[in-house]
Formats: sequence, structure tokens, C-alpha cells
Amino acid sequence: MDSAYDVAAIGNAIVDILARVEEPLLAELGVEKGIMTLVDAERSDAIYSRLPPAVEVSGGSAANTAAGIASLGGKVGFIGKVKNDQLGAVFRHDLTSLGVHFPTAAAVEAAPTARCMIMVTPDAQRTMQTYLGACVELTPADVDEALISGAQVTYLEGYLWDRPEAKEAFLKAAALAHKAGRKVALSLSDPFCVERHRDSFMTLLADHVDLVFANEAELTALYRTDLDQALSAVRAHVELAAVTRGEHGSTVVTKGGTVTVPAEPVQRLVDTTGAGDLYAAGFLYAYTHGRDAALCARTGGICAAEVISHMGPRPETNLARLVESTLSAV
Amino acid sequence: MDSAYDVAAIGNAIVDILARVEEPLLAELGVEKGIMTLVDAERSDAIYSRLPPAVEVSGGSAANTAAGIASLGGKVGFIGKVKNDQLGAVFRHDLTSLGVHFPTAAAVEAAPTARCMIMVTPDAQRTMQTYLGACVELTPADVDEALISGAQVTYLEGYLWDRPEAKEAFLKAAALAHKAGRKVALSLSDPFCVERHRDSFMTLLADHVDLVFANEAELTALYRTDLDQALSAVRAHVELAAVTRGEHGSTVVTKGGTVTVPAEPVQRLVDTTGAGDLYAAGFLYAYTHGRDAALCARTGGICAAEVISHMGPRPETNLARLVESTLSAV
Repeated sequence: MDSAYDVAAIGNAIVDILARVEEPLLAELGVEKGIMTLVDAERSDAIYSRLPPAVEVSGGSAANTAAGIASLGGKVGFIGKVKNDQLGAVFRHDLTSLGVHFPTAAAVEAAPTARCMIMVTPDAQRTMQTYLGACVELTPADVDEALISGAQVTYLEGYLWDRPEAKEAFLKAAALAHKAGRKVALSLSDPFCVERHRDSFMTLLADHVDLVFANEAELTALYRTDLDQALSAVRAHVELAAVTRGEHGSTVVTKGGTVTVPAEPVQRLVDTTGAGDLYAAGFLYAYTHGRDAALCARTGGICAAEVISHMGPRPETNLARLVESTLSAV
Repeated sequence: MDSAYDVAAIGNAIVDILARVEEPLLAELGVEKGIMTLVDAERSDAIYSRLPPAVEVSGGSAANTAAGIASLGGKVGFIGKVKNDQLGAVFRHDLTSLGVHFPTAAAVEAAPTARCMIMVTPDAQRTMQTYLGACVELTPADVDEALISGAQVTYLEGYLWDRPEAKEAFLKAAALAHKAGRKVALSLSDPFCVERHRDSFMTLLADHVDLVFANEAELTALYRTDLDQALSAVRAHVELAAVTRGEHGSTVVTKGGTVTVPAEPVQRLVDTTGAGDLYAAGFLYAYTHGRDAALCARTGGICAAEVISHMGPRPETNLARLVESTLSAV
């Protein structure tokens, strides 16, 4: 079927504030290591005031995936809400300068553009504190019908499930996609996000989702069992599940079988922020270009390896060239 | 003499927008490579729209120097104008979280916080386009008398000379410093800045400045002659001149003589942004701690080597530890 876009991504539009911190600061701040926590404006300010000098980079899980797909040469659109403020302009610039179609109007009367404080510890783990700001203004009206029905895959981040209006937007997008004969993909986002929404995620997978992206912790949190049993369980729910497993690579489960692809070598692990997002970018780019599961997983792994070798959640290399040279190397 | 601060720095309060670009883009944009150009809001937007995804980091020449001095463990204050907007908050956070005293109130009714688009080419050279925004609100009233008279050295960036009110603030600070028996230091900032203000810089050096920081291009632009003659000329004007010469290290000229210190080795040259600012940081920290000219220059060189080994104009390493370990290595 003809399609104007490979992927339409929907998610929170966030600017990341990245800081390198030492382990003890996490305890002092009382934040849970390795996961994403939602905070209000006051708590966000309190944490920020304790951070060392930082760097601002556009982020947001599905937006990172969209940026990755664009860097791979894919046709991609993004739906998400910023405010018409400085960080909103930064977010829009960083996405559209890659060629990502971004039709969502900025909010005028709203909280500021969302920020996520990402504390990167010396072990390259990231701990995230998100102030959603203007993201809470995302509603079903923002779901661009032309984009969704013109995209082979509509990709949704699980984080959207934290808010009722975003949830409605999410379901509207899924319905539009399926009506147009397209696929719906979901990222489970975070084990705590899964815990918060376990039952509705189960229903979602069974009723609305074709492709699911998760890491090991998220998938086992969803099914409250070990990895093997979770892989069997998810096979009954969706057409395809791509499960990332850190240094063990990734496993793709379909009705037809299971394929595991080893992790790509990483010269120096610097910051794991964006690993899952860029895996999804590589996977979806290959998927929408007709590749088999193994090659989709391999492409995802190459993109993930790039993003964890430097600070920040978006590629610093032209991914199209990187994937081509990696795949053609003997 | 007792002093509350080692250094009081005064300069433009700027957030940098750093992007890696290929050489041809500079020509397409019609920007002059390697120098700083002032642009208005419209031109700034036009250039920004042509840049690839970027990273936002606090910058500003004298502010970078202040950050460096704080990282070295020095007591330092900064005077400069942001607006009370998102980038202004980022600028303030990044400076104060290092322990820099920053008494200047944010402007409420003003253009947005200043931004400098820094295009870094593959040869690690940086080309800067600055939109001064709220910086134009800096006036003599912002010169904090307690800070200036309590600091051993008041350090001024030459870029301030581009605006009449900032110039007045500059002269007020110099007068306050001298009245308190302190030293006044000036950075010449940029060869084109020197060209714009050549005559008044000459007067300034002769009448108000004790220590001058410049690179080779700036010093020879000032005296319109070769390096040797420029070094002789500047000796007659100031007590001390520290002249950076890239891979040739730096030369310090005083009434008592001339000392040249070789450049510190750099593993990988990534981005020269902040090289001069961090040289001044190291130099001034050592100077205000009673070190001789050679050790001041060496300390400056170590700090400059750190900042050019990564993207961005501020140190990513604890400079106190870096300088200590470098100087104690055999």
C-alpha cells in the first residue's frame, strides 16, 4: 500500500537537561535510579537547583525515535505538544531540521515546554525526572489524521498513558491507523510506567497494538513472570514483539518464531539515554522497508549502539551511512 | 590585601547553540569563518533555521572564564544580563551551580536572553553568530560595587565594547577596581572586535588596563604589525600581556621580561570554542594565587587543552584536580 510516511510517532515533546552526576546525589535527592519519575514544577525546580552545570538537548522518547528514523533517511512525522517558548522553539528546530514533519501547533496558554532532567552516573545509567509542562495539553484534536492514515506504522510511547487526554489521543490514533489498514506500534517505555498501567496495557496490547517494543524489565513487569514465559505470553497478544536485552542483544517474537540477535559492539559506553528509542528507530526503519525480523533487530542494535556511545538521546552520526557501512562490513 | 573574590568577571550573558556543520554551509549562509559576528533577531532566526540539530550550553566569553575559575576552586563573581526567560534560567543555573556569585538581576522587559550560534566545522574551528538580546540592557547600575572592590582582579571582555551602555559599565567597573587598589584585566575577544574598536582599545589599554589577554590575531590587529613588534608595543601599554598562540603555546610579556610556555598536549582537538576563555581562567586563578608568569601560563594552557578536547565552551572536568594532576606528573 502506498504511504506518505514510514512512521508517525506520537509522544511527549520534551527538552532534556543532561547532567553528569555522582552516585550519592541520587540518594540525597531521593530519586529512584534508572527509571523515569514524573515531577511537578516545584519539585523539578528543587532538583534542578541541586544539579551541576548541564546541557540542553531535545529529547522525548517517541521524538527521539522519529529523529532516528529521519537520520536513517525515513519519512517520519511527529505529534507532540510544546509551548511557544524558547525550549519549545529549540525542540521544534531540532526535529524539523532533520526533516521530521511536525504538524502539532505549539500551545500558547500553557505551562512551559516539558523538561526532563537526566542524571547520568559514571556507570552510564540514566535517571530521569520529568516535568510534563505543556505536554498535558496534547488532546485528540492534535492527532493529525492525514499523517496517521498516511503512515505505514503509528508508533506510540507508553508514557502517554500517564494522562487521560493523551490516552484518548493515543486511542484515536490507533483507531485511525487501523481504519487505514496500517500497523500500530507501542513502546512500553519504563518498568514503572508498566506498573502504573499494567491492566490497561494488557488490554491495549490485546485490542489495539500490532508491534510492541520493550526491554526485559518492562516485559517481565507486564506479565509478572520470567523472560521466557513473558515472551510466550506476548506472542499471544501481538503480531510482533521486539525485546531489548542490553548486552545480550535483542529478541524478536512473532507468530512464526523467535529470533535473537547479539548486541552490537560499543567502544565506550557513555550514556544509555535513548537506547530503546533508537533501537525502535532502526527496527521500524528496516521494518517499513520490508526487512526480515533479524535485519530489523540488527539495524535497531546499530542505532542503539551509536546513541549510547555519547551523551544525549539523539544520534550524533548520520545513521543511514552508519548502518550501511556496518552492514556491509565483513 | 584581603579580598572576598579572586576575580570579578563582566561580560555578555549568552547561551550557546552548538552545531556541527560542514564547511560549505558557512559559505551558503555568508558567514565569516572563525570569527564572531553580531546579528539581529531576524538574521539569527534565519541562520538557526538552516542549522542541523544543536545542543544548548551556557556560554559567554567572560562567563566561561568565571566558570573555569570556579572549577579551579577560585572565588569568582560574574556580572552580565539575562532576561527572566527559560534560557536565562539555564544560564543562571549553570553558573551559580558552580559556586559563581551572580548578583545581576534578570531583565523583565527586554529582548530574550542572548544566544550565540556556534558552528563547529570538522577542523574544530568555531564560527559564531551572536544575537545580543537582553545583554543590551546591561548598564552601569548593574556594576556591583561590593563585588568589584572585593575582587583582586576585575576581568572585562572586549565584546562589551560593542555597546555604549556596556562600555560605560566597563569603565565604571575599571574605575571602582582601581579605586580599591585592584587590577583590571581585559580580553581583546576577537580580531574583528579589535578592528571595530581599535583606537579606543588603544586608549583603554594605556589608561585603564593592567593585564591584557589576546591571541596572536587580536594583538597584531591591534598594533597593525607583526607579533614581535606587537609584543614590544603592548609592553609599553600594560603591566602584563598574555598572548595565546595556538599550538605554539603562549607568551607572557611583562616589564621584567618575556616568557613563552609550550602548548599542552591535546589528545583529540574537537572544538576550539572557549579556548581563550579557559586560558584566561587558568591564568587568572594562578595569578591571584601568587604564581609566577610561567606557571600562570602553564595553568592557562592546561585549562584551554581541556576545553578544546570536547564540544562546548566550559570545562567538563574538575579543573582543580586536572591542574593538580598535570602539574604533579613528571
